[in-house]
Amino acid sequence: MPDPLPHKPRISIIGSGNVATHLARALDGHACISQVCSRNFTHAQELASRHRGCKAVENLADLDPTVDLCLIAVADDAIASVAQSLPKMQGLVAHTSGSTPIEALAGCSDQIGVFYPLQTFSKDAKVDLSAVTIFTEASNASALAKLDALAWAIAKEARHADSQQRKALHIAAVFGCNFANHLWTIADELLRREGLDLSVLEPLLRVTLDKALTLSPAKAQTGPAARGDQRVIADHLSRLTGLPHDIYSLLTTSILTHNVST
Amino acid sequence: MPDPLPHKPRISIIGSGNVATHLARALDGHACISQVCSRNFTHAQELASRHRGCKAVENLADLDPTVDLCLIAVADDAIASVAQSLPKMQGLVAHTSGSTPIEALAGCSDQIGVFYPLQTFSKDAKVDLSAVTIFTEASNASALAKLDALAWAIAKEARHADSQQRKALHIAAVFGCNFANHLWTIADELLRREGLDLSVLEPLLRVTLDKALTLSPAKAQTGPAARGDQRVIADHLSRLTGLPHDIYSLLTTSILTHNVST
Repeated sequence: MPDPLPHKPRISIIGSGNVATHLARALDGHACISQVCSRNFTHAQELASRHRGCKAVENLADLDPTVDLCLIAVADDAIASVAQSLPKMQGLVAHTSGSTPIEALAGCSDQIGVFYPLQTFSKDAKVDLSAVTIFTEASNASALAKLDALAWAIAKEARHADSQQRKALHIAAVFGCNFANHLWTIADELLRREGLDLSVLEPLLRVTLDKALTLSPAKAQTGPAARGDQRVIADHLSRLTGLPHDIYSLLTTSILTHNVST
Repeated sequence: MPDPLPHKPRISIIGSGNVATHLARALDGHACISQVCSRNFTHAQELASRHRGCKAVENLADLDPTVDLCLIAVADDAIASVAQSLPKMQGLVAHTSGSTPIEALAGCSDQIGVFYPLQTFSKDAKVDLSAVTIFTEASNASALAKLDALAWAIAKEARHADSQQRKALHIAAVFGCNFANHLWTIADELLRREGLDLSVLEPLLRVTLDKALTLSPAKAQTGPAARGDQRVIADHLSRLTGLPHDIYSLLTTSILTHNVST
């Protein structure tokens, strides 16, 4: 674990969405949340009001250039333009995005970095950051040490990931989480048509995830495709229409292909 | 919960694979495992040797027609032919398959049923049946009560499912478990190319499953497709080739379509 924080850093947060909200809450106490800036000024005021001594700011030009860290937690496609519109910052500027290279921040400070919490945030659901890995990257060792110290303070661990690795993490999270969740939506719909719902699968879903993490998912693969059970596959396909049919067919092909190649 | 078992039933098990092995282990004590029959006689002997007083049988014709329950735990496409080759059974005959209708057992006894543990079994991994739901169906109320009593004795719960519901369960389990696991395989492969592996996603995977079960997966959906973030989608697709590309594309389309229709 790197050196602890040398003093309580002053942090400005740009954005007032889910990531900004959860990070501000987690950082408060370890840092002084100095300013919150959002295009939606009402949101900025609401978020600022939760943090002692924190001011809401409407324009990027009004941000205090002397803060230790300016954290850009806005939509991915707004990061570069926000960075270009900042006053020249004396401290570290970091974004929180998995899919945006560090270069998007080039020029806005001598110290730039990435502080990417690998987690889905939604406003209603409470997120336990103490179980989350924060992936950090920075333009120099001193900036990296600062981000790591903050990450260790609020999360389970800090790990370093360059833009290439972060990109892989993000795509992997889309497959592993977003797409898996969508398959659960399809499963839920199929069950609801018969008066059941996803909850009947809960024990099986939990065991499946545990096995994938313990054995490796490739070794843990089961089911008609893994067995090459064409009779069951054909029967299932005959009962599906539309996108679920196409998804069943494509994922079956992919499992069969994996079985052959491994 | 139905009446407890009136006496310790005598059970024959046909098959010596994963389902047969795990069910025999779980039932022993609640029932007397009387015979094990398998085409692979060595397997049958090995399984029989684990259960006191249990005999291995090579031919279906040698099964004791007086047992209380004959459990057919063989590959789905062998169930009907096994059932047709049984001696006329005086007790209950049930199969353990999610995808096979009860009618596959027609004629082999006056009492037929289904005893379907909704779980994946593999020989190496220990399965905790006490967390598993067993779905039962039977040709009459008395047979159903017997199967329910056994299910409550060895599993978390018994629930009734007719062949139509069991089919939906099986297809839903393929989507929710087998296909989700395959997405985790793809995620693992993408991460390994960058020196990481699926374990870095563990906190996120666990939270994603918890949310899907708590909120409903449709409400819990996040990610570039759920946000309609075409820039990230295009970037991810440009980095993928082969089946992962096609799977990303199709699942993204499906999530976008769901968002529009809900």
